[in-house]
Amino acid sequence: MINKRLEKLRQTLSKYNLDAVIIPSTDPHQSEYVAEHWKVREYFTGFTGSAGVLVVNHNETALWTDSRYFIQFEDECAAYNINLHKQSVPHAPEHVQWICDSLKEKAVIGIDFLQFSKAQLDYIESIAKTKHIKLQNIPNLVDDIWSDRPGLPNFSVNLHPLEYSGETTASKIEKVQSKITDAKADYYLFSSLDEIAWLFNIRSQDIDFTPLVTAYAMVGLENTVLFCNRNRFTSQAIETFLKLNINIVNYDVAIDELGEIEANKKIIADVSSLNYAVYNAVKSQFIVQNSVAKEWKAIKNATEIQGAKNCMIKDGIALTKFFIWLEKELKTKSLSEYEIGKKLESFRKEQALYMGESFAAIVGYKGNGAVIHYTAPKNGSARVKNEDILLVDSGAQYKDGTTDITRTVWLGGTPTDELKTAYTAVLKGYIELEKLQFPKGTVGMQMDAFARVHLWKQGLDYAHGTGHGIGSFGMVHEPAQGFTTNPATSSGSSAHAAHQLTTIEPGCYKKDVYGIRIENVVLSVGKQQTEFGDFLGFTPITLFPIDRQLINTTLLLDSEKEWFNAYHKMVFEHLSPLLNTDEKAWLKDICKIL
Amino acid sequence: MINKRLEKLRQTLSKYNLDAVIIPSTDPHQSEYVAEHWKVREYFTGFTGSAGVLVVNHNETALWTDSRYFIQFEDECAAYNINLHKQSVPHAPEHVQWICDSLKEKAVIGIDFLQFSKAQLDYIESIAKTKHIKLQNIPNLVDDIWSDRPGLPNFSVNLHPLEYSGETTASKIEKVQSKITDAKADYYLFSSLDEIAWLFNIRSQDIDFTPLVTAYAMVGLENTVLFCNRNRFTSQAIETFLKLNINIVNYDVAIDELGEIEANKKIIADVSSLNYAVYNAVKSQFIVQNSVAKEWKAIKNATEIQGAKNCMIKDGIALTKFFIWLEKELKTKSLSEYEIGKKLESFRKEQALYMGESFAAIVGYKGNGAVIHYTAPKNGSARVKNEDILLVDSGAQYKDGTTDITRTVWLGGTPTDELKTAYTAVLKGYIELEKLQFPKGTVGMQMDAFARVHLWKQGLDYAHGTGHGIGSFGMVHEPAQGFTTNPATSSGSSAHAAHQLTTIEPGCYKKDVYGIRIENVVLSVGKQQTEFGDFLGFTPITLFPIDRQLINTTLLLDSEKEWFNAYHKMVFEHLSPLLNTDEKAWLKDICKIL
Repeated sequence: MINKRLEKLRQTLSKYNLDAVIIPSTDPHQSEYVAEHWKVREYFTGFTGSAGVLVVNHNETALWTDSRYFIQFEDECAAYNINLHKQSVPHAPEHVQWICDSLKEKAVIGIDFLQFSKAQLDYIESIAKTKHIKLQNIPNLVDDIWSDRPGLPNFSVNLHPLEYSGETTASKIEKVQSKITDAKADYYLFSSLDEIAWLFNIRSQDIDFTPLVTAYAMVGLENTVLFCNRNRFTSQAIETFLKLNINIVNYDVAIDELGEIEANKKIIADVSSLNYAVYNAVKSQFIVQNSVAKEWKAIKNATEIQGAKNCMIKDGIALTKFFIWLEKELKTKSLSEYEIGKKLESFRKEQALYMGESFAAIVGYKGNGAVIHYTAPKNGSARVKNEDILLVDSGAQYKDGTTDITRTVWLGGTPTDELKTAYTAVLKGYIELEKLQFPKGTVGMQMDAFARVHLWKQGLDYAHGTGHGIGSFGMVHEPAQGFTTNPATSSGSSAHAAHQLTTIEPGCYKKDVYGIRIENVVLSVGKQQTEFGDFLGFTPITLFPIDRQLINTTLLLDSEKEWFNAYHKMVFEHLSPLLNTDEKAWLKDICKIL
Repeated sequence: MINKRLEKLRQTLSKYNLDAVIIPSTDPHQSEYVAEHWKVREYFTGFTGSAGVLVVNHNETALWTDSRYFIQFEDECAAYNINLHKQSVPHAPEHVQWICDSLKEKAVIGIDFLQFSKAQLDYIESIAKTKHIKLQNIPNLVDDIWSDRPGLPNFSVNLHPLEYSGETTASKIEKVQSKITDAKADYYLFSSLDEIAWLFNIRSQDIDFTPLVTAYAMVGLENTVLFCNRNRFTSQAIETFLKLNINIVNYDVAIDELGEIEANKKIIADVSSLNYAVYNAVKSQFIVQNSVAKEWKAIKNATEIQGAKNCMIKDGIALTKFFIWLEKELKTKSLSEYEIGKKLESFRKEQALYMGESFAAIVGYKGNGAVIHYTAPKNGSARVKNEDILLVDSGAQYKDGTTDITRTVWLGGTPTDELKTAYTAVLKGYIELEKLQFPKGTVGMQMDAFARVHLWKQGLDYAHGTGHGIGSFGMVHEPAQGFTTNPATSSGSSAHAAHQLTTIEPGCYKKDVYGIRIENVVLSVGKQQTEFGDFLGFTPITLFPIDRQLINTTLLLDSEKEWFNAYHKMVFEHLSPLLNTDEKAWLKDICKIL
């Protein structure tokens, strides 16, 4: 099927006199996860990873992705004639040089301008022009082939109430307007879906696991336009927005309408995330700024922080019930990874304000845990027994917050010393970073290695970032701040500040043998103010025990043991009042002093 | 005098119908330290710091520099009407927005294209064009005012022999040629003076403290041109180069000659460091690459490493004699910072192959130590007595290597607990980073914070990078690798590899009270190869005791004490055979077990 689709794609290229096509994994809003309509790369390759670029010319089909997905690519695409190019740095645009090298002078590459940012297009052009290669917009090329392509999302839009958002739309818009005034501009254009959801306090279900709304937004000093299909809103909602001078205008006219703004107007925009179709249509002058919405949204208000803490209790209760169930079931039988994931989901469903998973739960047994973004197939997933190692990375969307937690547990038998050394180093790395005191403004790339240093000492490492921001009933991977080794990413280069929520999730993976990851969400808090700066630290808010069976306690410092015991004391105190007697006893045992 | 020069500058601006001028601190080779001819910014401001940009319009004189120079600026420029703009990030081009904001639409800014890289010029234009502001080249504007401006350097050029360089020019050129072939290019253009000195094994004295040669170089597949005044070479040297198909052509025709290369030729260049006058003149196509010379030069060969180690012994001997002298002198009298620096220089002069200081030695007593790039004035520098704290940062150029070492010593009296806590945290930070094991390819920005973490814990920090590469009878600050918090710098973003030489130099500074810095040069060495990567570590090669009087030993871990004792054992073993009985006894005492 995939081979047929690729054949058809090549025929279409010929028809339009194109020599190659570049198909990225994103949508017109540079989203990490996208609606079904935008899963073009997946349609042509079968590869479901969240990051990856497909390049097709008349001789070769090639896909670039990073180390998180190498094993997954092999599993999903081995049957097709697709060449994997391994990126050492995620999202590095190495395919551009490759495709230009592979083509003749004056060749033509087709790309859908909606799927490329201005910066990405500039980069491609800078390489392409050395061989006089042209870029051609191909807005409808895919539709010719993908006859049953899903439409753009059109679910009803819900207003996210003040009791969960903690700040009114009016207040947020007002702050944006003062930025417009400061910059002597006329408008502020937003195109990132998470920013728009935050700014207008709206949520929907356009993207799996991610409660966003497909839209553009143009904030003006007096009037604001939200480009989003009007039929998605109740008339009451339309009325409410109108009172705030916010007009809702259909999504499909956004580009035309933006193009009609006078040339002498000034529009502030984070051009790095603006797609080229919009950029190209706008005649007005852009003032380039990092989005203030991204920055503000990353600083959680008191309501959002309380919501997040509530969610952690709910997650902790669900995980307690789940692991009790798992322990009991495995005493008498084996279970598939898939059904374990489904059962975990069912325990979270029982929790108040539950809205769904925040990503496809990863339940990876033994070597499957080494596939960093593993998804157990519905049929034929591995049978889990009461032995060896299991990695469970899962999270939920609740109306009051978003969760993301990984635990790696030992199910029975005797672990190797090698495994215990690795697990202990991962735990030590987690503690090292969580306990770090650092000046406000420190960026993720400066801190990432603190979670690695104990692994490095043993000649171990992991091929992914150490953590990411997390939304409030929003994206599970939310900019700005995080921990990564890549300065070109938002999570590598954004300043950490108080009141942010970030994951810390070091790991260690041995292909076909094991995957280890320990992940908590931490809150940034003020620690100390001195003449040298404002110093911050992290406090964990995730509430579930960390398995101790794989710890080599002789490798832990006293201070690390103290951290471990204090964390488990906190977990027990928060969760036990909500558990029945048996559950409480189970948790008490698992939280005992190390 | 400065005010008069600025007045004359404004008159000249008027004469040429210019609204403003931007004067950076660099030369046509984007050098950090420059020949006298290029000290234009210093001429107009009196400010001698190595980093800083002067912007002059008809109303205001403004200078941008970073935290290393704030105190120095106050000292040097307080008498003039120059406004200091404090950069939070060194070299950040904040002045560009400022100058464009200050000017009217269609204003004209004068800049000397020789002093700006293509990237810098692009950046200025991107801001300027929003107000239709023009940039005009002003190659001779400064000469009109600065009547006694020193000429371009024209010292004789020495060949750097194989016994110190460890690799012939022929071998280096051949490696560049294979890069040209790989890229299907015709030429490789070099404009960084350190790269040219390395590639051609040439040295001179064009820049204070830095034995480089003012030149451009164009390596071709068959012929190579070194653009450098022919009268600087012996006829024998010219002959030697000719045998290698290297023609020496006068420096002043470089831009014209480069402009005559055919448009269909392809030239590899690290455009980031190429000045705009050259970039603009060249009609051929550029292939943009990071300079291979920069990368190769940073990896020292066995000869260079042995040379560096020899230099460390010489430096250690000189410092031992110096500190014995200082201790003895201060028993009976006070000394000026200036004469202390001169005396230190005299001890280094006694060492074999000594060629001069590698930078202006920093001898900072009490609060003067907090001026990060402090230079004691010849007249009226502080009187040092046998009490309180002294920071000494110094280094030398030897034919076989370059050194850079900082020690902070307590001269007598009782230090405060606060000072001891800070000093101990600096020492712990040094040890933490030096002992780090890390995978090959890790960049400076990922490691920098390991030297800060113990300071951060106490609410302390320092406002400079943690270390830099160092040359081999070359620049004391040498790219590529280093340790900094700024991803935009070479030392933040370059991969560490085995056989590199880098400084580790954390510090802590309290204005008007103290400056603490501990600095060693370390060699990168292979430690472990595993399936997770090649792991490296550092080994110190600087050989001089670290003062123990300021250590609060209760804050040191056993492992840190072990490091301290092992380091001092190594220092004593290397230096003692070359000392007389009294000196040996002094060193033995100062190296005893902690």
